[in-house]
Amino acid sequence: MADYKITQATEADIPDIHRMIVDLAIYEKEPDAVKATPEMMAENVFRKGYAGVFIARMVGGEDDGKAVGFALYFYTYSTWLGVPGLYLEDLFVDEQQRGKGLGKRLFGELGKLAKEKECGRVEWRVLKWNQPSIDFYEKCLKAEPQVEWEMMRVEGKDGMDRLAAMRKE
Amino acid sequence: MADYKITQATEADIPDIHRMIVDLAIYEKEPDAVKATPEMMAENVFRKGYAGVFIARMVGGEDDGKAVGFALYFYTYSTWLGVPGLYLEDLFVDEQQRGKGLGKRLFGELGKLAKEKECGRVEWRVLKWNQPSIDFYEKCLKAEPQVEWEMMRVEGKDGMDRLAAMRKE
Repeated sequence: MADYKITQATEADIPDIHRMIVDLAIYEKEPDAVKATPEMMAENVFRKGYAGVFIARMVGGEDDGKAVGFALYFYTYSTWLGVPGLYLEDLFVDEQQRGKGLGKRLFGELGKLAKEKECGRVEWRVLKWNQPSIDFYEKCLKAEPQVEWEMMRVEGKDGMDRLAAMRKE
Repeated sequence: MADYKITQATEADIPDIHRMIVDLAIYEKEPDAVKATPEMMAENVFRKGYAGVFIARMVGGEDDGKAVGFALYFYTYSTWLGVPGLYLEDLFVDEQQRGKGLGKRLFGELGKLAKEKECGRVEWRVLKWNQPSIDFYEKCLKAEPQVEWEMMRVEGKDGMDRLAAMRKE
């Protein structure tokens, strides 16, 4: 039976996390979407602290120490609740390890952290075509889809310039 | 012609911000949704730094200094882009000041901050029934609705306990 060890990632884990981010983009049918380099991760995640990462590694056997999953999160804040929350930006489980409970255990680490930080919510996004994941979230985690809300996005240098220009109008 | 001064809020601005959060909840047809107290805002926004706030005040005339708008935001991180982003949790403009460009100017301050912090995105949520706001976001800000994604949420003490329990399964 496979076992896993889940820890808070450090800069030394970047090569493994970066490889898994690329694997996840391929699974999400966006193989060219990953613009992040390991250097950008070091700077923005570990030095500037914009996000935290849990990393899962195999324990025992011939794959001992192999990185097979991660959960990258950051803190949110709810004006209505007055407390922080956690936003799960990415969760990944290696294809060969799926269906063995590792996804649940990564959510478990988020839940433990959420309790420690007195968070009111844990949130994340799922692609609407990804029915297996939606089923898991609704049935196993009792997560509620936020169907009343639409997410809006302004992106890229042009977008940031366009917004910033509105200061002067 | 009304003019406004927009600054980064401090703890001294909490009573005004809290009042506007309640006004916004009423506008969003959720008058009882605000569980946050001024004390919780002081602790989580200003001491622990989970969010930042721009506050807009009238300049000149008999309402000089009156708080008439705010934008509360926090930082995000994109695994694909490798850079931070801004998430606009709440934006409010006093009913009497709507249609005078203050919403745009608050977005402008977010854009300026996004450029300073080298952000790749500014994101926010809008209620799907709020067509006037959606029109403004799409036409004036050229924001794109993220229709491929569904937001999922686990909430409350029970929800956090349920997630945390998954560590042990």
